[in-house]
Amino acid sequence: MMRLFLVVCLLVNFVIKAQTVQSPSKSVQLEFKLDNNGKPYYSVNYKSKNVVKQSYLGLKCKDGADLVSNFSIDSIGNKTVNETWQPVLGEQSNIKNNYNEMIVALSQKASGRKMNIIYKVFDEGIAFRYEFPKQNKLNYFIISDEVSEFNLTGNHKVFWLPGDFDTNEYNYEETLFSEINTDIVNLNNGIGFKAITKKFAVQTPLMMKSSDGIYLNIFEAAVVNYPVMQLDVDVQNYTLKSSLAPNALGDKAYLQTPCVSPWRTIMISDDARDIVGSKMILNLNEPCKLDDTSWIKPMKYVGVWWEMHVGKSTWDYAGSQNAQNNGELKPTGKHGATTTNTKRYIDFAAKHGFDGVLVEGWDVGWEDWFGNWKENVFDFKTPYPDFDLKEVNDYAKSKGIKMIMHHETSASVANYERYLDRALNLMKAFGYTAAKTGYVGKIIPRGEFHDGQTMVNHYNFVAQRFADYKMMVNSHESSRPTGYHRTYPNYICAEAGRGTEFNAWSIGNKVNHETILPFTRLLGGPMDYTPGIFEIKMSAYDKTKKEQVHSTLAKQLALYVTMYSPLQMAADLPENYEKHLDAFQFIKDVPADWQESKYLEAEPGDYLTVARKDKNSENWFLGAITDENARNTEIKLDFLSPNKKYQATIYQDGKTAHWEINPINYEIKTIQVTSKSKIKLHLAEGGGTAISFKPIN
Amino acid sequence: MMRLFLVVCLLVNFVIKAQTVQSPSKSVQLEFKLDNNGKPYYSVNYKSKNVVKQSYLGLKCKDGADLVSNFSIDSIGNKTVNETWQPVLGEQSNIKNNYNEMIVALSQKASGRKMNIIYKVFDEGIAFRYEFPKQNKLNYFIISDEVSEFNLTGNHKVFWLPGDFDTNEYNYEETLFSEINTDIVNLNNGIGFKAITKKFAVQTPLMMKSSDGIYLNIFEAAVVNYPVMQLDVDVQNYTLKSSLAPNALGDKAYLQTPCVSPWRTIMISDDARDIVGSKMILNLNEPCKLDDTSWIKPMKYVGVWWEMHVGKSTWDYAGSQNAQNNGELKPTGKHGATTTNTKRYIDFAAKHGFDGVLVEGWDVGWEDWFGNWKENVFDFKTPYPDFDLKEVNDYAKSKGIKMIMHHETSASVANYERYLDRALNLMKAFGYTAAKTGYVGKIIPRGEFHDGQTMVNHYNFVAQRFADYKMMVNSHESSRPTGYHRTYPNYICAEAGRGTEFNAWSIGNKVNHETILPFTRLLGGPMDYTPGIFEIKMSAYDKTKKEQVHSTLAKQLALYVTMYSPLQMAADLPENYEKHLDAFQFIKDVPADWQESKYLEAEPGDYLTVARKDKNSENWFLGAITDENARNTEIKLDFLSPNKKYQATIYQDGKTAHWEINPINYEIKTIQVTSKSKIKLHLAEGGGTAISFKPIN
Repeated sequence: MMRLFLVVCLLVNFVIKAQTVQSPSKSVQLEFKLDNNGKPYYSVNYKSKNVVKQSYLGLKCKDGADLVSNFSIDSIGNKTVNETWQPVLGEQSNIKNNYNEMIVALSQKASGRKMNIIYKVFDEGIAFRYEFPKQNKLNYFIISDEVSEFNLTGNHKVFWLPGDFDTNEYNYEETLFSEINTDIVNLNNGIGFKAITKKFAVQTPLMMKSSDGIYLNIFEAAVVNYPVMQLDVDVQNYTLKSSLAPNALGDKAYLQTPCVSPWRTIMISDDARDIVGSKMILNLNEPCKLDDTSWIKPMKYVGVWWEMHVGKSTWDYAGSQNAQNNGELKPTGKHGATTTNTKRYIDFAAKHGFDGVLVEGWDVGWEDWFGNWKENVFDFKTPYPDFDLKEVNDYAKSKGIKMIMHHETSASVANYERYLDRALNLMKAFGYTAAKTGYVGKIIPRGEFHDGQTMVNHYNFVAQRFADYKMMVNSHESSRPTGYHRTYPNYICAEAGRGTEFNAWSIGNKVNHETILPFTRLLGGPMDYTPGIFEIKMSAYDKTKKEQVHSTLAKQLALYVTMYSPLQMAADLPENYEKHLDAFQFIKDVPADWQESKYLEAEPGDYLTVARKDKNSENWFLGAITDENARNTEIKLDFLSPNKKYQATIYQDGKTAHWEINPINYEIKTIQVTSKSKIKLHLAEGGGTAISFKPIN
Repeated sequence: MMRLFLVVCLLVNFVIKAQTVQSPSKSVQLEFKLDNNGKPYYSVNYKSKNVVKQSYLGLKCKDGADLVSNFSIDSIGNKTVNETWQPVLGEQSNIKNNYNEMIVALSQKASGRKMNIIYKVFDEGIAFRYEFPKQNKLNYFIISDEVSEFNLTGNHKVFWLPGDFDTNEYNYEETLFSEINTDIVNLNNGIGFKAITKKFAVQTPLMMKSSDGIYLNIFEAAVVNYPVMQLDVDVQNYTLKSSLAPNALGDKAYLQTPCVSPWRTIMISDDARDIVGSKMILNLNEPCKLDDTSWIKPMKYVGVWWEMHVGKSTWDYAGSQNAQNNGELKPTGKHGATTTNTKRYIDFAAKHGFDGVLVEGWDVGWEDWFGNWKENVFDFKTPYPDFDLKEVNDYAKSKGIKMIMHHETSASVANYERYLDRALNLMKAFGYTAAKTGYVGKIIPRGEFHDGQTMVNHYNFVAQRFADYKMMVNSHESSRPTGYHRTYPNYICAEAGRGTEFNAWSIGNKVNHETILPFTRLLGGPMDYTPGIFEIKMSAYDKTKKEQVHSTLAKQLALYVTMYSPLQMAADLPENYEKHLDAFQFIKDVPADWQESKYLEAEPGDYLTVARKDKNSENWFLGAITDENARNTEIKLDFLSPNKKYQATIYQDGKTAHWEINPINYEIKTIQVTSKSKIKLHLAEGGGTAISFKPIN
């Protein structure tokens, strides 16, 4: 159901007084004005308190006719939207989209150019975008810079990643705003290819908390045909300015009117749950463009993947795990993606009710794929001699399992696009319905960044092309999502952040990593975080290894609830799950698509407690996680249906559990509860609790 | 039959004495030496006269470890090759490949890097290339500069195009070497997108003539995975140095050992016929890589094309002929590529025995395709509403005609590669066997040049992909060919030079243009020059127009013999041919594939007379052309088979013919001749003669 109110006000003298838009509940207020030089600016109040100071807006154009100043207001239009829509897959069956909008139509007398700024004010924050209507004086143009400002009111606490247009796989730094400085980033972090070029630049989403308890998050939505935005930081004045990923020539975006920029968003609340649960980013994206979405399904999967990360097997057939060995094929017997090994995973997946099996390292090229900016690495169709595509897929089919294709592009995007149709036809021929893509390395076309307009268009093109084939895609090392999966829901997932694998062979992920991701990376879309590691310490594979997952086993279970994704991997090895089938039961039970989600407790960097109701049953699931500090809390179960009894199975940290000292220590207990019950939770250091609630009768 | 002699000499002290290789007849002699700094250089003598002075060789690498000096010689190998091979299509059925080779294996003690220089010395010139063997100290590397020198001995006459990595569609300048200067180029020349950046730089092939009558031509062969080479010019010292097309980052080539550079070639003779008839460039390319070539056929075609150039119809459906009208579709009825009009061409082609019909402007996008660096213009599959793909192709099939697809990429190569498989599948579905491609505009990926490594790889990739589909390709606005059609003979033709169309709407082509092309552009491969214009003056279409083809009608016929191509268009409109069916008979008779070719008279920029024997009959054809000067000559017909009588049909300039004053004036006469006959030819100013010889029983 959709209710729409439209009011267009044509005011006589816009210049004199500021234009104001309030959120539906009036908690958020945005003010817009032109200064004496015709430069547009805005400011934002939250509950009558200023949270964003006077911040200028505009864009510079390569032709020199900048869209920055000398504007006058042609008209101002207002409307209110209050609608509800249904995502194909999601955290909830119905999403409310309620905001007040103001469209400010600007023009420059001298250049004759027109530009609109569209503001949307929601109860959990504001959004604005630039709109360039079709016009005589502006057809093709090149954005050389966007100069959108976000001027803050104090020295907030900030969770930040260093500005880097090639990777978002860093750990988060948690500092005061004034302490932001990319020099403090530990560069020995396992990231294969990184490029920090500025001392004072951060990525978005940028999560902040003011000293008086107001949460702010700066991000963007609907990044389509435009580069990714990062933020230049002025640590003295607490101000931020947009910084767009350039191409090889230093240009930012090639546009043709009519067109729009992505939305720039600022989420604001004094309750962190409003931010982590916000659907603003999705609401700012275009509705689904696919007529038939019946083939888009949530998916739980296992895969030939973690065993390579832990060093048990290799991606390459040669088995050297040397990515630059000049292509020599001398098999050592350590190759992971064999027909036999894959069948073992298929058997395991079928036995435990999973939907799919991913296999990495199936295709020729892994002997010499990384680190040399090589253009022609993979052809996405030639399997290694020990991987029989037909046998594997026939076997999977006989067991009711879908194979998940793997397309590592080694960032040679030009090559991938050349082969994409052949790759998709191969997938079709063997019955694949989904693929994981990868973009490890320096981009080809050379000079492009992972976050540039060209690459943004590439990721979106791939999603569209997969949709043409009714296939789903899950991109790794891509730019982080900004809600485009609303428009192309077959773009089911992305990594685009620091995932679990870093724990296997690097300093790993900070203990509080998963308490930050939902406030940052996940705001743009689901993450293929690949949780579920039961064999926490790498010393289990090799006594000399010190690496480990920075989590208890129970927390690994809780992540299936706290980290929303319609694509969820049980990332550990079958043999490790076999050792803990009681705990594994939670992963088997937890769904990946939801009717309803309740964020019960939230504090970025500290803890998160979420309850979700299965889309297809009356079952509820709860996940609670904490950071490096143990935590005791009591949860009211009032989200459960009244007048129903539930059997709650609680998977919790054992008494001596500790992410570092005793991570595998866990307990499972079963109790009966109702919506009136409360449950006391104890989370160990780096721990968590997972609970399933099943109605009794 | 192939005879191969291999001798490897390991000399004790290479440094002391120069190494020498002579051509089989000993007319050409190349000397190689290292100087005291271990810098390799060569020089060339022709008939004991020095023609290339001491010229240094080497390459600079981006990592700083240049391959320029500090070399020592590890070994020297020599061999002689004398073989004959058969091209799929060509000027002759058998091609002789006879040369002496020297491989100089060099290494740098400090860097540990190895590089070979391979020299081949033919009777008509020399060739050398750099070879980088597989080695420990050199795997991946980036060429930042190639510093191959070509140091000449005097102030030769030179036929040159200005250095420009984006277009080769200039008229030739004919000056002394000392007068080379790109400032003298008339830039009002109709070229859509050009980029001359240097004052003293020229393209290759560079044709020269010394004051003592020695012809020299500098070019390259087998440009594969490497950028195009142009030449920087020192007009004071008569020296030239290689200059490679860069990419957006200024890098020249990304290589991995083992690999090779293209061949750098210098053709040398005191008889210009040796150069124009040389098969050196083809001999330096790899043999055919296709097992089955039965589907590669010569093709004569007509097309919906010239009528757009003369303004009678338009490429775009809107009919505005405005390439930047923002995509508005307001049909005016001037669209050329309609089903009805195409059928007219099919009828004409069938009636007169042509093989194919090309249609440009059939696909959506022409309303806004040029001049704005637009990425997504064409999708290569959506016809305009008035062009029925099925109806057209069914009709063509019923008449025994093959339709030729047109893929204008507007230089958005990224987009073309994304759509290529779809485009080829469409062609397959409708029975197309060949396509003409186009690359008008600034290249996307942005920052690349038409002549860069990326684009060279693209053109070659397209040829390979077409071969996968058993289809032929003819590229326009590509980099000029360097013999790769030996390796992929389905890359049947290219424009890659100033073609006939410039005559329709610009200053046109100089009167002597076609007397230069065979000494330059055509050395690398056939050109889709689109001759055969009978309605010479554009005033026939619009009285106000002053443009014209700079040729007599008879010369237009002669071009079918002087300009070798297995793909030949009869470019004029059917209605213009209908007016001169007697002259048109020559175009109908002339084949496009040959058993034998005899270059009878040749002087670059002045005249050319060629006789060729049909591959599939005993018929001979002769073409003679001149420049702006009239010419009288007598031709011995001793190329004809002895003991045979021939009916010779002579198409010659009329008595008052003159390219400007009376271009359509022609005469046709028939005589009987034998191999002992001589024929006197009179060629008008800008004129020509075409003759067919058919045996009389």
